[in-house]
Amino acid sequence: MGMVGGGRGAFIGGVHRMAAALDGQIDLVCGAFSSSAEKSKLSGQDLYLPSERTYGTYQEMIETEKSLPADIRMDFVSIVTPNHVHFGPAKMALENGFDVVCDKPVAFNLEEALELKKIVDSSDRIFALTHNYTGYPMVKQARAMIKAGELGTIRKIVVEYPQGWLSNKIEEADLKQASWKQASWRTDPARSGAAGCMGDIGTHAENLAEYITGLKITRLCADLTTFVNGRLLDDDGNVLVHYENGAKGIIYASQISVGEENGLRIRIYGTLAGIDWTQVEPNSLIVKYQDKPRQTIRTAVGNLHPEAQAHTRIPAGHPEGFLEAFANIYRNFAFCLQARLAGKAVDPIYRDFPGIDDGVRGMQFIDRVVQSSQKGAIWVDF
Amino acid sequence: MGMVGGGRGAFIGGVHRMAAALDGQIDLVCGAFSSSAEKSKLSGQDLYLPSERTYGTYQEMIETEKSLPADIRMDFVSIVTPNHVHFGPAKMALENGFDVVCDKPVAFNLEEALELKKIVDSSDRIFALTHNYTGYPMVKQARAMIKAGELGTIRKIVVEYPQGWLSNKIEEADLKQASWKQASWRTDPARSGAAGCMGDIGTHAENLAEYITGLKITRLCADLTTFVNGRLLDDDGNVLVHYENGAKGIIYASQISVGEENGLRIRIYGTLAGIDWTQVEPNSLIVKYQDKPRQTIRTAVGNLHPEAQAHTRIPAGHPEGFLEAFANIYRNFAFCLQARLAGKAVDPIYRDFPGIDDGVRGMQFIDRVVQSSQKGAIWVDF
Amino acid sequence: MGMVGGGRGAFIGGVHRMAAALDGQIDLVCGAFSSSAEKSKLSGQDLYLPSERTYGTYQEMIETEKSLPADIRMDFVSIVTPNHVHFGPAKMALENGFDVVCDKPVAFNLEEALELKKIVDSSDRIFALTHNYTGYPMVKQARAMIKAGELGTIRKIVVEYPQGWLSNKIEEADLKQASWKQASWRTDPARSGAAGCMGDIGTHAENLAEYITGLKITRLCADLTTFVNGRLLDDDGNVLVHYENGAKGIIYASQISVGEENGLRIRIYGTLAGIDWTQVEPNSLIVKYQDKPRQTIRTAVGNLHPEAQAHTRIPAGHPEGFLEAFANIYRNFAFCLQARLAGKAVDPIYRDFPGIDDGVRGMQFIDRVVQSSQKGAIWVDF
Amino acid sequence: MGMVGGGRGAFIGGVHRMAAALDGQIDLVCGAFSSSAEKSKLSGQDLYLPSERTYGTYQEMIETEKSLPADIRMDFVSIVTPNHVHFGPAKMALENGFDVVCDKPVAFNLEEALELKKIVDSSDRIFALTHNYTGYPMVKQARAMIKAGELGTIRKIVVEYPQGWLSNKIEEADLKQASWKQASWRTDPARSGAAGCMGDIGTHAENLAEYITGLKITRLCADLTTFVNGRLLDDDGNVLVHYENGAKGIIYASQISVGEENGLRIRIYGTLAGIDWTQVEPNSLIVKYQDKPRQTIRTAVGNLHPEAQAHTRIPAGHPEGFLEAFANIYRNFAFCLQARLAGKAVDPIYRDFPGIDDGVRGMQFIDRVVQSSQKGAIWVDF
Repeated sequence: MGMVGGGRGAFIGGVHRMAAALDGQIDLVCGAFSSSAEKSKLSGQDLYLPSERTYGTYQEMIETEKSLPADIRMDFVSIVTPNHVHFGPAKMALENGFDVVCDKPVAFNLEEALELKKIVDSSDRIFALTHNYTGYPMVKQARAMIKAGELGTIRKIVVEYPQGWLSNKIEEADLKQASWKQASWRTDPARSGAAGCMGDIGTHAENLAEYITGLKITRLCADLTTFVNGRLLDDDGNVLVHYENGAKGIIYASQISVGEENGLRIRIYGTLAGIDWTQVEPNSLIVKYQDKPRQTIRTAVGNLHPEAQAHTRIPAGHPEGFLEAFANIYRNFAFCLQARLAGKAVDPIYRDFPGIDDGVRGMQFIDRVVQSSQKGAIWVDF
Repeated sequence: MGMVGGGRGAFIGGVHRMAAALDGQIDLVCGAFSSSAEKSKLSGQDLYLPSERTYGTYQEMIETEKSLPADIRMDFVSIVTPNHVHFGPAKMALENGFDVVCDKPVAFNLEEALELKKIVDSSDRIFALTHNYTGYPMVKQARAMIKAGELGTIRKIVVEYPQGWLSNKIEEADLKQASWKQASWRTDPARSGAAGCMGDIGTHAENLAEYITGLKITRLCADLTTFVNGRLLDDDGNVLVHYENGAKGIIYASQISVGEENGLRIRIYGTLAGIDWTQVEPNSLIVKYQDKPRQTIRTAVGNLHPEAQAHTRIPAGHPEGFLEAFANIYRNFAFCLQARLAGKAVDPIYRDFPGIDDGVRGMQFIDRVVQSSQKGAIWVDF
Repeated sequence: MGMVGGGRGAFIGGVHRMAAALDGQIDLVCGAFSSSAEKSKLSGQDLYLPSERTYGTYQEMIETEKSLPADIRMDFVSIVTPNHVHFGPAKMALENGFDVVCDKPVAFNLEEALELKKIVDSSDRIFALTHNYTGYPMVKQARAMIKAGELGTIRKIVVEYPQGWLSNKIEEADLKQASWKQASWRTDPARSGAAGCMGDIGTHAENLAEYITGLKITRLCADLTTFVNGRLLDDDGNVLVHYENGAKGIIYASQISVGEENGLRIRIYGTLAGIDWTQVEPNSLIVKYQDKPRQTIRTAVGNLHPEAQAHTRIPAGHPEGFLEAFANIYRNFAFCLQARLAGKAVDPIYRDFPGIDDGVRGMQFIDRVVQSSQKGAIWVDF
Repeated sequence: MGMVGGGRGAFIGGVHRMAAALDGQIDLVCGAFSSSAEKSKLSGQDLYLPSERTYGTYQEMIETEKSLPADIRMDFVSIVTPNHVHFGPAKMALENGFDVVCDKPVAFNLEEALELKKIVDSSDRIFALTHNYTGYPMVKQARAMIKAGELGTIRKIVVEYPQGWLSNKIEEADLKQASWKQASWRTDPARSGAAGCMGDIGTHAENLAEYITGLKITRLCADLTTFVNGRLLDDDGNVLVHYENGAKGIIYASQISVGEENGLRIRIYGTLAGIDWTQVEPNSLIVKYQDKPRQTIRTAVGNLHPEAQAHTRIPAGHPEGFLEAFANIYRNFAFCLQARLAGKAVDPIYRDFPGIDDGVRGMQFIDRVVQSSQKGAIWVDF
């Protein structure tokens, strides 16, 4: 694995590295960790990389690595930069024969996403997008239950994603604060894109709803707000949503919900049963029935759907968390690469990670919520 | 207390009687329990009432009781009938000098509510409306905290109220089922009014938000749905809401959220702190701060605001529930009657129960959500 | 109902009155509320009782009431005094033809309890003991499940009852503090008996275990401690317990577990399933299975055992609490009195409240834990 | 890192490898994964190890690696075998200059543990014992709070550790079942030692209590049971415990508590506050006060003690689990090795992992509980 971005002070780069390392399937062999060549070198040293494989730019990395012998060069590129630097390295990597793991949202805007989709579709390379919340075993279980009809026809979907870390204007705060770097680019239209909160976490909410239910959003009405004075992008949004089968629901995301940590939660109600999953306690999936007891399905407890069981590593009661779910994307991606190298088919259970189509949906979601809100929170088709 | 409605098979009548009895301040002395005189008599017997004070109609009850000596006759009327029979007995009771406790929503439609307001305002009688969720100690605590500025400026308010009991068309089911009688009138436009779910429980959500925050809703956009085939009123609704101070939020209510019991929950986020209260576990109020530990405030634990402490009866860890909260409305109402009789002032802490203005707000809410939804889920002013 | 004890400043007297009033089956008609005749009068006024039926002593109450016409005089006596004044009024009431409800523990010591048992057994009066935690619907459900064999053979029983209110020596504190009166007599060997914490709440734990499982304790090893300097009775105790069928377990009670409210919890594990019930959230009963999802059984949700359904009043999701559970004892007691008066049999489902045998077991428990602990925490037979 | 044990079908070997890999500080370079040379080779292949560094025995591994150049040979040995094969490789590794990470309990019996302590103490190698539950950030927080006096004087400590996976005699079940291999050796006195449940998980409970409080157990009274017919070691135990400062408590562990996953929980009550931590939801630490709100301290939320902050990797609300806690031991161990190699001092905050003294305490605990129970559950000194 060669990494683009993720130098000193970054958040998500470290997450990708830990997730890639966890299962012993992937080694970090090179990187272009920063837009500053010097910072890139320092980051490479931190990571015990040889100096000659710590590159100043992603272009340099891709070109140099391409020229190395097959058993030495990186197998794939992992892109962990801010949104405005997703498209470039992804395109170049794919066009030079490298598979790609890319952080979400997939691009800076919908146009880039659509162009990238063309590139991916016309290539034989694998493209994975780290909508990491799909990697949790109980999310897999929820999806498998719905696929198996255990909930009946889906009627209502409520996804909420409150955070509180942008309650104050920390993007202008002292540079030494750990969260400043994150706040700085995520609230900057030039680096983040047309949406703030909705791009950063609203897309996770949208992706989770579509992934679990298999239903597409068809219309929405979005009420976005910037609560913090002087901030340039939305920091809160409430969205009414219609799905293709007639289901209705709400997606709300917020970064000014003071005191909330990372409160992604999804509730789905069908004609037969409802389910309830909360990211901060990810190893429980609550199933609700009318007139009989609620069930709490738990990671690694017997009788899970195989899709869920295949994405847990340790026995019941040994909690698996965010990094393990994130690692499930990397592990499945690695299994697919290995299978291709070995000329074998991959068990479909592992051919399960978000890709370019999820990326395009996410960018459409951003596009539509911004459009709806700018026109006065009217309904727009998806 | 004389009761209108609440005969055999009713739900809320029994609740009112238990709530009124709990604190030893109120005796049930008469009633017109049913539109059937015979059923009314049987209900009176169940309740150990003398036959001559079990009336066939509320008109008969009010007229007869009025003629009894002051120390014998009922002190006030409690109205626990379906919505279309609220206005009539309330008007007649008030005009004949009786104080009134009335179940919510206050009337069949907004016109009735406005007319009733005129009657109440021009009378010197006390009118209480049983938006019972305002009676919980932790709801009082939340309100007092916001009043004291402990949350800062309110930015976001999320109220949810999912139930599942109308997931199927039980209004057509076997008459013997306990919930049929409830389902039957609550889904019937001739008895319930213009809204189903939104009138029955959406109004509780709206009332709770305005009661706790002290803020009025100014605009809304409502997406109501009837999911169950052949049902005549909405059984689900998602509403975007704006408040007078610029706060925004969501109110959603549902009676097809299968497996949900009575899931009223409110979360309020200010600039300084957020609060979270859930009706099914009503003795905890969670307070969320940025960068410091969450607090769980508990009924009857030391250091509550006096408003909260005054509405709890037993020591911490002895859970108080729905009936105790409901009883707080009756007890406060009784204290106010006693004070008037004694010519004394009531401690303001007890002059705290919903009244006619809350009733009018509730009917406006019903009116506006129906209007918004019928026009395609557009924004309407409140 | 005539009450002994429960005057101004008492805690449990008010609880008994609210519990008795809740279901409209019982009226308070007289009382001897205090050892001070003057305080008794004032308490009677608070409760709207006529002055002539507010008595100075329980002896006076029993004698006077006995002489009143049957349709006027009290039907039964409710005893809510400290432990050292249980036996006297209970004996006198029974011997004068009155049924009795008595607070727990049943007597000051085992000898009194055994003598009272003789009196009850040789009388035809009903004696109810308010081990109120047995009144919760989910406790009834747990008992019915075990009776039906749903847990298999019981192996392990863990009962814990931590409180924190005696963490400091509040029995010496300012008299104005609300909890002082409670602390004062409960830590006084002359009024409480041989045990402090173990008598006050340990007996509830013992009773709950035996009630739910139907198993008797046969041996125990008790390690009691007085943590607060100068206190005269135990304020904490840990007990190893053996049951008649070979099951083993722990009972622990504490009043110095700082920050705990009223944390009674019981977990029972059989060969087939385990159950878990916590008093502070009493409407949930968790059932745990090996290799399949946990179930959360909830008050008033469909498919409860009839014993549980019969002890709930309102629909699911409308939380019932401590007073409702307490009221279940009074209501069942009232149903039994009514049936006797009517010469009818009572549905066995309502002939369910603790009685003198539970009282004797409780006093034996106190006797044995004190004996075990005094001898160095050795094993003693029950 | 060279590994002893942990071949195909093992549980804890994989955990150690993931924990070691997570932070990018440690590479697995060789192993003797099985007592069967052939199985060891296959395991080595699974792990992408070169064939020549997959050894047939730990002796071969230690001898061969010792002869390799310093920059090639393994830096330390990780021992993940059943208990009866801890002492041998640990002794040999230490005596040949290798640092050691060893799974718990440290040895097969107390004699081995004491001898190993002599070897460790007389060597300059680092010995880490994977009492992994000490690695959780909230456990660090609890310890730091107690050290800082925030709980006052500790009075009561309740540690519970229920599991249900040995409710049936799965040690005789079909070999194909995943848990059979675990059950098989853990219930076998020849491989596990004198205790079953108490050795496997009781020692974790004991270690956690002493680690967090800094207090030593001085006396105990243990009631061990074998509930499953024909099982050779205890599968349940209840222990009364006294601590050096006068604190008292309970330790209970069980593997027949049907439906329990891995329920380690510790509650500690001091004179000022109590704390409550549960392993299955490890990112919350509840702090309980008398007369003021409970606090929920959360991993990575601001204002943690530095000891807690140093052991968390990602922002609040991104749950860290069992593997992350386990990895904290490996990471700290690696930091200490690196510092020694670099001739630098290690920040004391990272010099924090269990060692040989914890191992000896654990074996003493096993020794004493077995002794106590065999003599009829009498008190024995520690």
